Amino acid sequence: MRYSNDAPPVITLTSGPVNAYPEVLQGLGRPVLYDYDPAFQGFYEKVVEKAQKAMRLSNKPVIQQGEPVLGLEAAAASLITREDTVLNLASGVYGKGFGYWAARYSPNILEIEVPYNEAISPEAVAEMLKAHPEITVVSACHHDTPSGTINPIAEIGAVVAAHGGYLIVDAVSSFAGMDVHPEACHADIFVTGPNKCLGGAPGLTLLGVSHRAWEKMKANPAAPRASMLSIVDWENAWSREKPFPFTPSVAEINGLDAALDLYLAEGPEKVWARHGLTARATRAGLRAMGLEIWAVSDEIASPTTTAVKTPAGIDEAVLRQTARERYGVVFSSGRGETSGKLTRIGHMGPTAQPIYAIAALTAYTGAVNALGGKLKAGDGIDAALAVIDAEA
Amino acid sequence: MRYSNDAPPVITLTSGPVNAYPEVLQGLGRPVLYDYDPAFQGFYEKVVEKAQKAMRLSNKPVIQQGEPVLGLEAAAASLITREDTVLNLASGVYGKGFGYWAARYSPNILEIEVPYNEAISPEAVAEMLKAHPEITVVSACHHDTPSGTINPIAEIGAVVAAHGGYLIVDAVSSFAGMDVHPEACHADIFVTGPNKCLGGAPGLTLLGVSHRAWEKMKANPAAPRASMLSIVDWENAWSREKPFPFTPSVAEINGLDAALDLYLAEGPEKVWARHGLTARATRAGLRAMGLEIWAVSDEIASPTTTAVKTPAGIDEAVLRQTARERYGVVFSSGRGETSGKLTRIGHMGPTAQPIYAIAALTAYTGAVNALGGKLKAGDGIDAALAVIDAEA
Amino acid sequence: MRYSNDAPPVITLTSGPVNAYPEVLQGLGRPVLYDYDPAFQGFYEKVVEKAQKAMRLSNKPVIQQGEPVLGLEAAAASLITREDTVLNLASGVYGKGFGYWAARYSPNILEIEVPYNEAISPEAVAEMLKAHPEITVVSACHHDTPSGTINPIAEIGAVVAAHGGYLIVDAVSSFAGMDVHPEACHADIFVTGPNKCLGGAPGLTLLGVSHRAWEKMKANPAAPRASMLSIVDWENAWSREKPFPFTPSVAEINGLDAALDLYLAEGPEKVWARHGLTARATRAGLRAMGLEIWAVSDEIASPTTTAVKTPAGIDEAVLRQTARERYGVVFSSGRGETSGKLTRIGHMGPTAQPIYAIAALTAYTGAVNALGGKLKAGDGIDAALAVIDAEA
Amino acid sequence: MRYSNDAPPVITLTSGPVNAYPEVLQGLGRPVLYDYDPAFQGFYEKVVEKAQKAMRLSNKPVIQQGEPVLGLEAAAASLITREDTVLNLASGVYGKGFGYWAARYSPNILEIEVPYNEAISPEAVAEMLKAHPEITVVSACHHDTPSGTINPIAEIGAVVAAHGGYLIVDAVSSFAGMDVHPEACHADIFVTGPNKCLGGAPGLTLLGVSHRAWEKMKANPAAPRASMLSIVDWENAWSREKPFPFTPSVAEINGLDAALDLYLAEGPEKVWARHGLTARATRAGLRAMGLEIWAVSDEIASPTTTAVKTPAGIDEAVLRQTARERYGVVFSSGRGETSGKLTRIGHMGPTAQPIYAIAALTAYTGAVNALGGKLKAGDGIDAALAVIDAEA
Repeated sequence: MRYSNDAPPVITLTSGPVNAYPEVLQGLGRPVLYDYDPAFQGFYEKVVEKAQKAMRLSNKPVIQQGEPVLGLEAAAASLITREDTVLNLASGVYGKGFGYWAARYSPNILEIEVPYNEAISPEAVAEMLKAHPEITVVSACHHDTPSGTINPIAEIGAVVAAHGGYLIVDAVSSFAGMDVHPEACHADIFVTGPNKCLGGAPGLTLLGVSHRAWEKMKANPAAPRASMLSIVDWENAWSREKPFPFTPSVAEINGLDAALDLYLAEGPEKVWARHGLTARATRAGLRAMGLEIWAVSDEIASPTTTAVKTPAGIDEAVLRQTARERYGVVFSSGRGETSGKLTRIGHMGPTAQPIYAIAALTAYTGAVNALGGKLKAGDGIDAALAVIDAEA
Repeated sequence: MRYSNDAPPVITLTSGPVNAYPEVLQGLGRPVLYDYDPAFQGFYEKVVEKAQKAMRLSNKPVIQQGEPVLGLEAAAASLITREDTVLNLASGVYGKGFGYWAARYSPNILEIEVPYNEAISPEAVAEMLKAHPEITVVSACHHDTPSGTINPIAEIGAVVAAHGGYLIVDAVSSFAGMDVHPEACHADIFVTGPNKCLGGAPGLTLLGVSHRAWEKMKANPAAPRASMLSIVDWENAWSREKPFPFTPSVAEINGLDAALDLYLAEGPEKVWARHGLTARATRAGLRAMGLEIWAVSDEIASPTTTAVKTPAGIDEAVLRQTARERYGVVFSSGRGETSGKLTRIGHMGPTAQPIYAIAALTAYTGAVNALGGKLKAGDGIDAALAVIDAEA
Repeated sequence: MRYSNDAPPVITLTSGPVNAYPEVLQGLGRPVLYDYDPAFQGFYEKVVEKAQKAMRLSNKPVIQQGEPVLGLEAAAASLITREDTVLNLASGVYGKGFGYWAARYSPNILEIEVPYNEAISPEAVAEMLKAHPEITVVSACHHDTPSGTINPIAEIGAVVAAHGGYLIVDAVSSFAGMDVHPEACHADIFVTGPNKCLGGAPGLTLLGVSHRAWEKMKANPAAPRASMLSIVDWENAWSREKPFPFTPSVAEINGLDAALDLYLAEGPEKVWARHGLTARATRAGLRAMGLEIWAVSDEIASPTTTAVKTPAGIDEAVLRQTARERYGVVFSSGRGETSGKLTRIGHMGPTAQPIYAIAALTAYTGAVNALGGKLKAGDGIDAALAVIDAEA
Repeated sequence: MRYSNDAPPVITLTSGPVNAYPEVLQGLGRPVLYDYDPAFQGFYEKVVEKAQKAMRLSNKPVIQQGEPVLGLEAAAASLITREDTVLNLASGVYGKGFGYWAARYSPNILEIEVPYNEAISPEAVAEMLKAHPEITVVSACHHDTPSGTINPIAEIGAVVAAHGGYLIVDAVSSFAGMDVHPEACHADIFVTGPNKCLGGAPGLTLLGVSHRAWEKMKANPAAPRASMLSIVDWENAWSREKPFPFTPSVAEINGLDAALDLYLAEGPEKVWARHGLTARATRAGLRAMGLEIWAVSDEIASPTTTAVKTPAGIDEAVLRQTARERYGVVFSSGRGETSGKLTRIGHMGPTAQPIYAIAALTAYTGAVNALGGKLKAGDGIDAALAVIDAEA
């Protein structure tokens, strides 16, 4: 049998958008209230409080009404001024990309770039800061999703904090899948969203903003105002007493509420644990069949996405299409520079469960073999199962 | 990590209730209309027409407002009179059980019983009918779910039809998962429901009733009327012009509508194909690891449920609990006589997809091994994958 | 503009099925769990506990898997034996109807019948019991919905209790819309369901069963067992440790859970208050226009349904069809003897809100006038509004 | 009884966000697919085609991933250059506001402003264009929601077209509630969204873009690119063959699909008719009680929102809070200059039904009277009913 491209696949194992939890789908379908109704305003405040709790913040986060590219663009536009010198850390396509946004707002951009299967070292950041005391803002992508690699953001954050710089962190695809939080990594603006490890829908950004980042943005006359890109307009929008700058995406807020409830009820540590275990089982399985992980070391391999190198002689796009067609399983491709070189197996939200590592390994291997590979799926499954059972 | 009994499992692979399709869940959540509203009455008629199409009937089926035990009990109560001689065919716990219902309405009950891992042979039925020309009603369970075995119902039906007897068929857990339909198997009452291979919710019965069965029931003064058990009261309830005998389960009708739409849109033959392939892959995988299928032959092994014999020395209940606890995968136990002797892996509705055979084999094997087994899951997966790939 | 019969109406103001609350619709759409999964068994126990709390019972109620006609039929079949003498109280079509069920199980049926716009007096019951000390069972319909009238069930219950009889109460369309509970009215079997004042979906029965009713039913060898009609099989099914006699209607249980949550969270007293106020406003409005309430006195007029006499010269069915066609508002007709003589305006669950009294009065009046009436809707609205404002 | 601010109201009659249709809520809750999955890409293309049909466009509209303030801001940012001279038409707060966005992108802004209860006359536009041949862009708000007034956009559009100018039309709160479409009014950019008369959720913009507007924007080097504000990046995103510039709001797309299906299935002309009739009934009712409509004439009074002048001596905010508290009915306030002077009664989407005019009149009048007014609600209802019945 063959699965048609016209019908949804059986299992989605991508690095986002991921399938939302059933409870989130139900949340999305709750009645749409008038945004100025006091019941909605009170509800919105409670959702922000739940986000604050999940993000372990001492102040209120901002919910922006668009998927996290909005938050990233808005962070650059609001925080960075022509007087700033920005150090952009690029260990992948997304980190590299932020530099382009930064360059719109300041002519002074420095960059540390490493090969896209490696991570930024805190030492390199420290050196750069020492060499360039004029650096005021550092931007980093925690999990560079197109590479499935993690930067040591807590250590980098400590270095930046010691320097006194502002830190912008893209934690879109790592937050809620591992132990990363704005204040713990000294982020001044921490960008994430509901549609990766929280198992929500795409359409919102969650922003953690430090006190001094608020001050800097509000003092920036060029920071967007009366604009979709504005952060500063939303500073007090969390309060039931304050109006919204424009209409929030009511249904998305309803869905986010459900996603946060699930995350807090299951327990963040437990959620991270099943993300991590699923990733470890997947890597063990892939390696047992002789396949290679994109990340240079396990230490920097993401617990929320496993990027596997495409075997020589195989067309990566055809590989994914084969996995979908034969087994109904969908993976993500690389992006930009990593495109064609790797396949990404997502472990996020509802599919961050070890049993899905088995489905992933099977579908991936089956597809490779259909294209001429000679892998033994069973070897992969046995190795993955050993990892899972070791923690049972 | 361990899955808690307090939270839903990750994957449900039971022989029913099965997880409903997302579209069915949405159907269940449609607004509840007043049953006498013309919009609802027109809608109900359309749902019956869809059921008629799915069941390939030349007349309207009956939707009964309770899960299929209602339909089975009602069939016995309505069709069987004290003047009837009933031949009950028992190849499993459910077939055997129908005999007890039959015996409430007639003192004249004959039975063919075979070991619960075998099937009834049409020849045996023919012989019995020849020996007992007084037999007027034959009752058979098509898929005796607690055994995962299928009786050759088309052949049995032909024999009964030649004899002139009335045939009651329990096709609750086979209809929509394989090619079985009321008229093709000469059933006079054909009982099924939305919650097995249709991937709907439990709470309704679908009854195919032949013209002569309608006549016999209506002529039976003891057939339930003004009762939850009544079939005859519902004869014309499908029509938008006629009142309902009592309030139908509006939400269940909404859900059934969605389930029928899905089944007809995907194409019955395609739906059966993925049920069958999933079962074959599962059996191949189990056997490759040295495990035994409960059914004596592949010919009678159900395409909608695989019953696997519990390895010696293992407690079947503990095995299932282990699979749930370690991998979040839920299977069904046996029932009655088969209880403790086998585990049932369901392939019904949304999980009748080959990739779930892989998940099933992994979780089952992992649980056996956790209890002392020495199986190689990889061997099972490779064998299952070979079956799947052979049809790709 | 005219509303089509093929599309749902705008507002449903019937006496059931009523529109379910949005939260209930969402509840109905939750994932369908396997009934034997421990998560479902634990959940079921919690739902029964919520029902117990809502019904203010000291023991666990039974959830039966069919709409309340199942509960009523099952109560008669389980509690009444050929040795019993039953006093049936008939103040309307439903009360009268129960007598027919009772008569199936005992030849000894007595009845008090009053005109269907009146109520049964406790004194009449006391006299009857005195005159017939052999009476063992009394059956009463609390709210005889086709008449929109309420019997004084607490007083009747006290009389029956003093006599030592068993009391069966049909509170299907009154429970959760006013202060009526099993133990407070000395009911031995108290039948209700989610689809009236709880604003749930039709498809379940809630049964309150007294300790001595359990004893009597279990001692009755003719009480249904291994049957859809069984009550006794479900005695312990609430417990997460016990199996279900047959598959419960999982989606309906999910919906009931949501309905009970809403009822308990809003506060029963508040829920009753808005039912009562809506009914009072409706009656005031109808009377202000010179229309007549079916019930002989306000004292016995139901707070959950207002039955209004059809003005002379008007065809009641045409009146309702006109209200639907012109205004998109649906009412209920009478039933049996009251059919054609009255229209029923429901105040149940989500539409038990005073503002809907206004919509009801407008649509009813508009329809009467379209058929030749000369009513002033404005007079009705002013009177209704005065009632509402008096409690603001 | 009093309604709490902590619970949702009974009826929402605002000018947006409005309650979404039940089918839209279900749409929002459909599974979240991966945006690059071919099933999603094909689905997205179909949704765009439905939007094209609803908007009666000859080319594909753009779906932007944010509520219509995004579309308006993006239109200004993309179409208007420093070389343009813009004529902004301001007949209300929203029209006025667009001028501020326009002024960000060009220093050459002219304006026609009229009192906010009047409309722009096409003649005035013609004169201005004649006097200022350098005008290249005209911007107009079709329904200035805070005033409940409609500008004659078809006539204005014809004048602008004759002049050869580009026309930007804000039809956010009129499209789908009356006969207004991009090409019929010569709009080059026509901005609307799902959350007003389509009865969808807020969170998306629908943009109709003329061929020459595409050319102008693509030729504009300052038009946003690689930005949340970009229009040009989305030109081909409708095609299943093309990637999305960033992740679309999958759940919102699902909801929009449902909203468009409803609109097209009911029939646009029928949808407009019920919006218009509800508004006419509301105005008639208000006037019959001596209240004043904000719009200077019926001709320019919106069919989708009725703005009623707040009676002297009454605090408008208290009035709305009273209507909510006493009757559970929510209205919208004015905005900016109209704030405190009028209340807006929305007739949009699911509540654009004449029976809701009755609920609106009752709640509004009751609130006025609670604050010292002496209105007779009945007079209003009778007048409204007469309007409704005149079209029955």
